[in-house]
Amino acid sequence: MERTHQHFENTSVKYADMVIKTLRVRIEDVPGNLGKVATAIGKSGALLGDICTHHVDSHFLTRDITVFVKSEKMLEQAVSFLHRLKNVTVIKVIDEVLNMHRDGKIAITSTIPLDNLADLRKAYTPGVASVSELIYRHPEKFYDYTYVGNTICIVTNGTAVLGLGNIGVKAAMPVMEGKAVLLKKFSDVNAIPILIDSKDPDVIVNAVLAIAPSFGAIQLEDIKAPECFEIERRLMEKLDKPVFHDDQHGTAVVTLAAMMNALKLLKKDKKKVKVMINGAGAAGIAICRLLMGWGIKNVVLCDTDGAIYNGREKNMNSIKEEMAKTTNLKKEKGVLKDIIKGKDVFIGVSGPNLVSPAMIKSMNKNAVCFALANPIPEIFPKDAIKAGAALALDGRSLNNALAFPGIFKGALKARAKAITLGMKIAAAKAIAKEAKKGELVPNQLDLKVHHAVTKAVMEAV
Amino acid sequence: MERTHQHFENTSVKYADMVIKTLRVRIEDVPGNLGKVATAIGKSGALLGDICTHHVDSHFLTRDITVFVKSEKMLEQAVSFLHRLKNVTVIKVIDEVLNMHRDGKIAITSTIPLDNLADLRKAYTPGVASVSELIYRHPEKFYDYTYVGNTICIVTNGTAVLGLGNIGVKAAMPVMEGKAVLLKKFSDVNAIPILIDSKDPDVIVNAVLAIAPSFGAIQLEDIKAPECFEIERRLMEKLDKPVFHDDQHGTAVVTLAAMMNALKLLKKDKKKVKVMINGAGAAGIAICRLLMGWGIKNVVLCDTDGAIYNGREKNMNSIKEEMAKTTNLKKEKGVLKDIIKGKDVFIGVSGPNLVSPAMIKSMNKNAVCFALANPIPEIFPKDAIKAGAALALDGRSLNNALAFPGIFKGALKARAKAITLGMKIAAAKAIAKEAKKGELVPNQLDLKVHHAVTKAVMEAV
Repeated sequence: MERTHQHFENTSVKYADMVIKTLRVRIEDVPGNLGKVATAIGKSGALLGDICTHHVDSHFLTRDITVFVKSEKMLEQAVSFLHRLKNVTVIKVIDEVLNMHRDGKIAITSTIPLDNLADLRKAYTPGVASVSELIYRHPEKFYDYTYVGNTICIVTNGTAVLGLGNIGVKAAMPVMEGKAVLLKKFSDVNAIPILIDSKDPDVIVNAVLAIAPSFGAIQLEDIKAPECFEIERRLMEKLDKPVFHDDQHGTAVVTLAAMMNALKLLKKDKKKVKVMINGAGAAGIAICRLLMGWGIKNVVLCDTDGAIYNGREKNMNSIKEEMAKTTNLKKEKGVLKDIIKGKDVFIGVSGPNLVSPAMIKSMNKNAVCFALANPIPEIFPKDAIKAGAALALDGRSLNNALAFPGIFKGALKARAKAITLGMKIAAAKAIAKEAKKGELVPNQLDLKVHHAVTKAVMEAV
Repeated sequence: MERTHQHFENTSVKYADMVIKTLRVRIEDVPGNLGKVATAIGKSGALLGDICTHHVDSHFLTRDITVFVKSEKMLEQAVSFLHRLKNVTVIKVIDEVLNMHRDGKIAITSTIPLDNLADLRKAYTPGVASVSELIYRHPEKFYDYTYVGNTICIVTNGTAVLGLGNIGVKAAMPVMEGKAVLLKKFSDVNAIPILIDSKDPDVIVNAVLAIAPSFGAIQLEDIKAPECFEIERRLMEKLDKPVFHDDQHGTAVVTLAAMMNALKLLKKDKKKVKVMINGAGAAGIAICRLLMGWGIKNVVLCDTDGAIYNGREKNMNSIKEEMAKTTNLKKEKGVLKDIIKGKDVFIGVSGPNLVSPAMIKSMNKNAVCFALANPIPEIFPKDAIKAGAALALDGRSLNNALAFPGIFKGALKARAKAITLGMKIAAAKAIAKEAKKGELVPNQLDLKVHHAVTKAVMEAV
């Protein structure tokens, strides 16, 4: 299992709380000089990323050096160490992240030519009138002659954004545009961010219902629990098109995919495996439901008050009551450290550093640890492995982006009226199948994965 | 003035009620054969458009021949005449308009690279968190790091679409996408169509207010009067961003531009010129207001019940009451044919063929006729000129598309909080100035026009 752990450590866990900057440095072109530069940066505590040559002149090279720093102070120190070197100058510090996000990350484009009057008369008046009349007479042709059949909206109220919480709709927008970029790149779906600055489910539901004809499907995003459940339920009842809360079902699908591969690798039986889920918010509930929908029997769901069981009185709500009826049938009681004992699988969708190595040690043999809290997991995968877990992942590898692009594409292409349990399980199976041998999930940048999910979802419709 | 008339006749008036099709015809490559083909098509009554070579083989040419036909029967006849020719085969009839609209005319694109894990980590998690945090701390940076500052929504309820009327939101969508294409091509603004299937101003206003944070400005489109006035007024009151009903103000700006040039060409004084506007819907009211805002004193507004005057009782509403106080100060009474007598300018935003040559003859010397009804004008420009008008235009030349792309771009770039009278007059002046000598308005495909409008609007903010 060492390879699995290795793979994920390489990707990024050690950069979890660091900021990316780029130093543009002019260096005399003498053997050994780049080594001195790298050493000076290392001395500040900063980590090195890519090094690219920006400019060459007779005796000097200008290089763009990406660094990961923990603070402004660390950055200043790196720059100051560099300036002490002979014939080395930091020309400027570039914030590549901010640069990438400047003016946003998406745009509307025209997919038709409009170079002359003939084009204009076909695309717009008078030609367009014949297309409008056709749709008026045959409303079922709406998707054939508009972009709506390949277009979704991503609705947020900015109340549960990444690990940042309730930062509001404006601050949520870069994340929404990021999702739109992923949808475009991974499955060629058009996604329009819709920001609704309200915590009132009525306002959100009514606005989405009003604008729903503009879109082929609705993605709910970064809306906090428990409002997200009510909003999703009411929209699903009223709309005959897919409504999908990614924080719930995207996470759940990817978790199920990893679970499928983990049980296969460890030869554990889904009907016997003991699972605990820490966190009873949107993601925890959805993971629990999907795992049980797939056939896992033994799940205990925990929140900040410990195990949820039928009859518990403190800190309950209607969703938890509902879950208490089908999970934790042995009525286990206690907090995280009690419940994790003897479990085969730990799934965390809670908070940073909540799981200790000792807790991992208390689990069953060949334990599985999916610690998905963002940006700092419940326990880093390398620490879980060190403590004896057979398999460990965090949210960086076990990422929603593996699921939602293909799920939407498949649902839109098949003109599904909803996203069903069957479609979610089909998506999870497709993701699981695309993982390389010995690994739990595939690489999200591999377009084959998204094609496979699309196809599986279409077939399941 | 002959040139002006000539110019506009050439563009398209004679195709107003015709449908465009393309015949793919295989023709033996012998001198004179294309002449026979063209003659055969002409015999059916169809008009010829472009002829493009599609394929060449040893003895035959395959050509795509665009034809304008009045009916399916006319098309069938053209095909049948062609088949009677020796060595001529109609391979297929192509509907180029439908082809152009298939799957819609717009798409969302990503403006950033996403080729590797480094890109992904900057564009999405973890990098995006620093951009969200920046906007959370400094909300004024929202427009700098999102696409919102260059993005508008185009809202319709499908109740007044082109000349087609209340055809519903689905059938309106090809027109909305067409507007989005024009905005993109002419002024690089992102426009998102928003379809709201309701005639209730409350539903529309509340939905637009709820989603307004997603957009830098709101364009209202093809919403029928009088609801459009209330919706616009309420949105303007509540939003600190531009709200612009194109059917009102786009039309008004372009009409004012043409009026500026017409009065200059004919050396008439805006304070003395006598204007009548036929049609008291969205466009008529807005034209009236803008012309008076610019300085025209003498306007009579007519509806289906004739001249509107202070004290009229039949078929009034709050907008007409308001207009009655500032227009028609001499309380002229009567229907169109009475009111048009002795006027310098006729502006029609009403219905097809309502103005006869005799009515044009009854106008003042050097009369101006802007007959803007769509798709068939009140009187075709060539007929108005024949009846003695000095200048005549219809809606095909005097098109909103000259105004709204630059108005939105200018308002967005200057971060205007509303679109004011001053901005509209500045836009009209810029359009008027871009017209070629002797003509009233420039060509909408000339990007220079849209740049000039953008600049003028920015300066006016």
